[in-house]
Amino acid sequence: MLENIKRYSTKEMTKIWSDENKWQTMLQVLIAVLEARVELKLVSNKRVAKNAVKKLKKLRMIKSDVKRINIIEEIIRHDVNAFLDHLVIKAELTKLQAAVYAQKITSYDLQDTGNILRIQNSHDEIMKVLRQLSAVLLRMALEHKYTLEMGRTHAVHAELITFGSKILGWYASLERNVSRLEEAAEELRVGKISGAVGMYPLPPEVEALACKKLGLRPVEHSTQIIPRDIYNNYFSIIGNIVSEFQRWSMEIRNLQRTEILEVQEFFSKEQKGSVAMPHKKNPIKSENVSGMCIMIRNFINALIEVSAENWHERTLDNSVVERVFWPLTFSFTHFAIKRFKGVVEKMFVYPEKMLKNIEITNGAFFSPVLRAALEDKGMPRQDAYTLCKELAFQAFNPHDPDSEEHLREIAKKDEQIKELLTDEEIDQCFDLDKMKPKHIDKIFSRFVLPEE
Amino acid sequence: MLENIKRYSTKEMTKIWSDENKWQTMLQVLIAVLEARVELKLVSNKRVAKNAVKKLKKLRMIKSDVKRINIIEEIIRHDVNAFLDHLVIKAELTKLQAAVYAQKITSYDLQDTGNILRIQNSHDEIMKVLRQLSAVLLRMALEHKYTLEMGRTHAVHAELITFGSKILGWYASLERNVSRLEEAAEELRVGKISGAVGMYPLPPEVEALACKKLGLRPVEHSTQIIPRDIYNNYFSIIGNIVSEFQRWSMEIRNLQRTEILEVQEFFSKEQKGSVAMPHKKNPIKSENVSGMCIMIRNFINALIEVSAENWHERTLDNSVVERVFWPLTFSFTHFAIKRFKGVVEKMFVYPEKMLKNIEITNGAFFSPVLRAALEDKGMPRQDAYTLCKELAFQAFNPHDPDSEEHLREIAKKDEQIKELLTDEEIDQCFDLDKMKPKHIDKIFSRFVLPEE
Amino acid sequence: MLENIKRYSTKEMTKIWSDENKWQTMLQVLIAVLEARVELKLVSNKRVAKNAVKKLKKLRMIKSDVKRINIIEEIIRHDVNAFLDHLVIKAELTKLQAAVYAQKITSYDLQDTGNILRIQNSHDEIMKVLRQLSAVLLRMALEHKYTLEMGRTHAVHAELITFGSKILGWYASLERNVSRLEEAAEELRVGKISGAVGMYPLPPEVEALACKKLGLRPVEHSTQIIPRDIYNNYFSIIGNIVSEFQRWSMEIRNLQRTEILEVQEFFSKEQKGSVAMPHKKNPIKSENVSGMCIMIRNFINALIEVSAENWHERTLDNSVVERVFWPLTFSFTHFAIKRFKGVVEKMFVYPEKMLKNIEITNGAFFSPVLRAALEDKGMPRQDAYTLCKELAFQAFNPHDPDSEEHLREIAKKDEQIKELLTDEEIDQCFDLDKMKPKHIDKIFSRFVLPEE
Amino acid sequence: MLENIKRYSTKEMTKIWSDENKWQTMLQVLIAVLEARVELKLVSNKRVAKNAVKKLKKLRMIKSDVKRINIIEEIIRHDVNAFLDHLVIKAELTKLQAAVYAQKITSYDLQDTGNILRIQNSHDEIMKVLRQLSAVLLRMALEHKYTLEMGRTHAVHAELITFGSKILGWYASLERNVSRLEEAAEELRVGKISGAVGMYPLPPEVEALACKKLGLRPVEHSTQIIPRDIYNNYFSIIGNIVSEFQRWSMEIRNLQRTEILEVQEFFSKEQKGSVAMPHKKNPIKSENVSGMCIMIRNFINALIEVSAENWHERTLDNSVVERVFWPLTFSFTHFAIKRFKGVVEKMFVYPEKMLKNIEITNGAFFSPVLRAALEDKGMPRQDAYTLCKELAFQAFNPHDPDSEEHLREIAKKDEQIKELLTDEEIDQCFDLDKMKPKHIDKIFSRFVLPEE
Repeated sequence: MLENIKRYSTKEMTKIWSDENKWQTMLQVLIAVLEARVELKLVSNKRVAKNAVKKLKKLRMIKSDVKRINIIEEIIRHDVNAFLDHLVIKAELTKLQAAVYAQKITSYDLQDTGNILRIQNSHDEIMKVLRQLSAVLLRMALEHKYTLEMGRTHAVHAELITFGSKILGWYASLERNVSRLEEAAEELRVGKISGAVGMYPLPPEVEALACKKLGLRPVEHSTQIIPRDIYNNYFSIIGNIVSEFQRWSMEIRNLQRTEILEVQEFFSKEQKGSVAMPHKKNPIKSENVSGMCIMIRNFINALIEVSAENWHERTLDNSVVERVFWPLTFSFTHFAIKRFKGVVEKMFVYPEKMLKNIEITNGAFFSPVLRAALEDKGMPRQDAYTLCKELAFQAFNPHDPDSEEHLREIAKKDEQIKELLTDEEIDQCFDLDKMKPKHIDKIFSRFVLPEE
Repeated sequence: MLENIKRYSTKEMTKIWSDENKWQTMLQVLIAVLEARVELKLVSNKRVAKNAVKKLKKLRMIKSDVKRINIIEEIIRHDVNAFLDHLVIKAELTKLQAAVYAQKITSYDLQDTGNILRIQNSHDEIMKVLRQLSAVLLRMALEHKYTLEMGRTHAVHAELITFGSKILGWYASLERNVSRLEEAAEELRVGKISGAVGMYPLPPEVEALACKKLGLRPVEHSTQIIPRDIYNNYFSIIGNIVSEFQRWSMEIRNLQRTEILEVQEFFSKEQKGSVAMPHKKNPIKSENVSGMCIMIRNFINALIEVSAENWHERTLDNSVVERVFWPLTFSFTHFAIKRFKGVVEKMFVYPEKMLKNIEITNGAFFSPVLRAALEDKGMPRQDAYTLCKELAFQAFNPHDPDSEEHLREIAKKDEQIKELLTDEEIDQCFDLDKMKPKHIDKIFSRFVLPEE
Repeated sequence: MLENIKRYSTKEMTKIWSDENKWQTMLQVLIAVLEARVELKLVSNKRVAKNAVKKLKKLRMIKSDVKRINIIEEIIRHDVNAFLDHLVIKAELTKLQAAVYAQKITSYDLQDTGNILRIQNSHDEIMKVLRQLSAVLLRMALEHKYTLEMGRTHAVHAELITFGSKILGWYASLERNVSRLEEAAEELRVGKISGAVGMYPLPPEVEALACKKLGLRPVEHSTQIIPRDIYNNYFSIIGNIVSEFQRWSMEIRNLQRTEILEVQEFFSKEQKGSVAMPHKKNPIKSENVSGMCIMIRNFINALIEVSAENWHERTLDNSVVERVFWPLTFSFTHFAIKRFKGVVEKMFVYPEKMLKNIEITNGAFFSPVLRAALEDKGMPRQDAYTLCKELAFQAFNPHDPDSEEHLREIAKKDEQIKELLTDEEIDQCFDLDKMKPKHIDKIFSRFVLPEE
Repeated sequence: MLENIKRYSTKEMTKIWSDENKWQTMLQVLIAVLEARVELKLVSNKRVAKNAVKKLKKLRMIKSDVKRINIIEEIIRHDVNAFLDHLVIKAELTKLQAAVYAQKITSYDLQDTGNILRIQNSHDEIMKVLRQLSAVLLRMALEHKYTLEMGRTHAVHAELITFGSKILGWYASLERNVSRLEEAAEELRVGKISGAVGMYPLPPEVEALACKKLGLRPVEHSTQIIPRDIYNNYFSIIGNIVSEFQRWSMEIRNLQRTEILEVQEFFSKEQKGSVAMPHKKNPIKSENVSGMCIMIRNFINALIEVSAENWHERTLDNSVVERVFWPLTFSFTHFAIKRFKGVVEKMFVYPEKMLKNIEITNGAFFSPVLRAALEDKGMPRQDAYTLCKELAFQAFNPHDPDSEEHLREIAKKDEQIKELLTDEEIDQCFDLDKMKPKHIDKIFSRFVLPEE
């Protein structure tokens, strides 16, 4: 069970979301609060408090601490209390020090603020790989700026695009999401030291100073916990990001279909595609990303759903959901981004196959040009449409898959067309150059580009 | 707004879920309860009650009743009370009759039991079209029992199947779901006349007899309402059915891709595929079904989610969700089934294109046969696999899309193979007949078939 | 069926999302594009185009137009083409005008850009009521700034808060969401006139100018459609807002419990709470809001889910989902906000009941003060905790619900305590004034307040 | 991260879903197939095959096997191929044996069939604890068959129920779900040995015999995989079960509110409810179950969503989702059931507090009886309703929380009532015995009861 989760986790996130680090970040918060109280002269005995700080600062939470805390928790059924009890022993606090080190603090002061530190670290890791992916996408977009490819709507050939413009669309969306995520993370750079129900047994000045020491701002209003709408906002954007990853990974898979094969996931020499079929090259990483995105979206649905289940100054419903789904969301998202980046980076792109695919409809996709030419010669809009529709279907007729007669030749034989257009004019309707997207440069110029 | 909902509704469901019919079915329940009380001698004045029944039985709820009930509701803020008040006036009940006609009944006795009647009617309509679809699928499966088609895994060519066997899989799944749905509907054939908190102000015998008159069983335990797990069970199966429809409609769309085009949605002569592109034939109905399935699944998620939000003997959270999502679920599901049935029924199937697609990899998909032959001649398993993999990639190389060299010819030139196999033996490896599925008849014989 | 949807809709949204307005906004876009082309001299015959504009500008789409468009759609199976055909007739365009009025435009240029106009109008309505609600919340927060109430965690009494501070938390969250929503709406103020696959059959300059005329910006990159991540971002925030509404409406319901009854929904003289029970006053509007929020969240889940199902330059899956769920989301959200605002505005608040509830545990909630006093006198942290826990359970013992012995009196009789504290000192531990939140003013001062 | 998952897992599920057991069950399937082929004489060399079986049967997959398989997978990027390669080495298969042991088997023959074995084992564990819970619920229902409790609708006092009848409702729902789950598990007792695309490279007879050896039936139709609708059906029911657990655990939490306190989770002597507040006894296990249920429901949503994403004869989207969510669903569900059973089993029930709560409205809940008495004396239905409503609000008036005037006394002073009822008759309206549920025995008798 856990093996399967490890398989889709990253070492960065595993570290951030380890139990050692959970206690370490809480310790960090505890120290910050105590230091703040000392500075603000809100301890009865400054020397005692300072010495406690000194002892606490020396501690590094490791595996054995986790074990001992768990043992205490077994008895007293409260994890943060167990942690606090453990600290007293581990730091060898004197009686007086023990009386002051966690005074007037509630578990969630430590827990929520500590978790924010972990979330911020996770966010930094996410940003790192998103930025790398962004660069990869932009590079690929520029490389294939003019690489012709058939545009498809309804999964049916439409009009020409360039492969680079498709990837530029991904880049544009990613940049938007990156900037939304940065903003949401900034909003989430908050802590709270406001006690059991947000009424500040320690005065707000302590919260302000402790948060500052931790690189955070005090949240403007809290109950027992930091308001979950701020987290929801952040995770919604993660959800939107993975929705895009799902779409993009499906795009790669669709373009890798045997019948299309315009791109292909890297496939190593040793790799096996199938037990039974040696010829198989499957886009398994992209398929994996597609599946992971569905998981992550449902983690986030649960996080948002449970955030509504918070009675009064807080109930505990969210605890288990966040304990499990925050790490999983960050870890799986990190993994999926890295994997997707790897796929794009090493992906084979086949421009010649793209060109070849453009031709498979025997020129049917030129029908808009033909129609325009007929309209220019005065054929009524509807008539031109209907005629071109019929001829296009003749050129590309699935009942007769072996036929290779081109729409151009069919048009030349049509009586109605012959009356309006010469063979030469017809030929001009089938000039690929005229079908090429004309404004690619303008589209690309909308984005700030690296100096070339 | 409403236009868009009408667009995806059916007239059958619109009628069942009209407000007229809401009140009509509640009236039916009200009458059944009163009759039961008369029969069981649980009214103080039998004659009064009988006359009330007589008057009530004459009523048919129409649009104008709905309006008047709504006006009363505006004032007293309780819809069923408004309905009861309206009945007194409309049926011209005497004071004595009015005192008895709804005695000891709570709104949800009428509402839940009445809605069950509507759900049962809706279920019948759903079954009708599911059965029709089932017949259509079976017919198509039989028709194409031996129609060869490339099987695809990871969207990449794998081994041969028949198109009929693919459709048979749909049929098998539909039959399973149909039988699950029938069972769940049977479980849902229940009513409740147990009062405000399920404690039977009218004795259970009344419930039993009234339910019998309505073609229902009394539910074994109720609070103010019939337990929602019974509904959840039914709607979950609807959710599973639409998941299959989503998958199938996507299959059609994938098979209609320009590059594959093995099937195609019916496209009428007058139909336009695109404003701009006369050559377009898009699988718009299948796309529509795919989208509708996502909607329906989310209706059901909400129904199940809200069912957990029911405090004590009931809270009202579910009311609005059910009011809106029961009709929408039934109506959209009914519409989607009908539309999907229409798509399959009229769909063009192109067996020749299927054959042609089999060949596009220049024989790469024969590699398992070649591998087996090499293994038979003593080549180690891994070596044979690796060799066949390499040669297959040579035959079907996206870097060189114009190459048409067949794997057979490539094999004949390979030194290692030449040592083990003669040209004749190689030719035998590329015999399409040998690749054909051998057990199609046995697969089909698992299903009870209509006499042919 | 539709009645139930009407019941939860608002007239503002019904108008915006009517079919008349759908066509009207598309017409607006069509005109803007044609005007832009004229200004940019991108029409072959300027006079013809100008006259077409003049004719089109006179049109107002009404119910009869909708009907006629639907009839045409029945035949040609494409709604926007039907609309365009209808315009030619309705505006009495000449042959030349008809040739130019919609040239090189694809349906989704009109549809997506037109829908953005409707979304922006909807957003304005949403903002209006959110702002009103925000003012109502702030007013209530200020009014009850010092109204003492028991804070509850795990639904169990914790420490004192003020009712105003609870409401201030709602206000703070709403303000955050309002500002996020404004930003997301601004991001969504975009249009696209980029043709069938985003390759600009009309040059980007036309898009830029037409968008400007419509009060929009050109989206930086489009395929056939405007990228859905921008919509997802907006709707996610709506989802987060309704999650808060769900939580708040549940809070009201919990505070209205018979056993708590600190607030109560307005209940009119004529209103009936139950068919059977005259004494019932139920929080039905809040319950309704809770249910609606679940629905809306699931609409949004579906919108985001379907956005990932968009192959290549677009497939149609999203069409039906957006057609139905955009209007429903806006309409239900609008309705729920208004309803919730009404609830809060007219809600009865019972400060005296709040005070009374504080006392029901016979002083158990003073145990932290008692503990602190004992610690101050040198009792070890753990011992003080354990002792206070035991005594508090004695004071408030569900096994003995009639006992009214106060923790103060119990403390005075305890041997261990007597050794450390005098009766007077004990009395001081049970001074409600000392338990009162001390930093309410500081908390409130964090928010920009209207001049008082 | 993994610590948090371990925290909510059970040892039974951890074992079933370990990687060792994954390979062990696949090995079981592999052996069954090979044996079937031998028995059916479908191997070229029977002795070779028999010897291979003998060697394979001796293997027990342990941690070190998992490691080695993972190392091979790193290179060849295909886990089942890695497993097969490892078997050859581990079992020391000869060249001939290696040629035959996995012939014509595709990975998913092993994987899907092996996983079914694990699912069936998991199901057995689930059933075990569900059955235990069922017994606990029935026992509690019987114990409190006549324990009076206020029934609550809209979270507001309604009419009397018994606590036992509430629990009986849980029992009834659980029994329904248990029987649905058993049936769904039976439907899922299937295997498939039908090759890469379901076309039986090994004839169906092998599948039939191998399945029989494994205690399974052959699934009637398969592609590369067993159809997912069968799994969806099973997991939907799990989803419905956890929805009920969510509702029930919330019920306990609501009944444990300080103001209600009719039940209370067991709380050990050493347990701490809060760092800061010694008096706190929180229903943390029930809160935890509520949260877990939301998680599990979202796992299942994802499983169903991804099942629709299966193109052609299968794509891989589902792989990761099932790898992670099958184990998590089973493990968390198992944990939540056990935890909930523990809560119910050890829960304190306070019948005296229930009685006391009945009285807190000063007799307002007797208003239906009073109304009935007035109606009997000829007061019109509406008038009686309105009058009783007003008086009830007088008796229980949150504006005046200290008032203790009973509805009885208020009624006696009312002029209208005095005209119709004597003081004695009024007193009779307030007889608790008359309000008691009268049909509790009949309700209980609907369930097959253990002999008492």
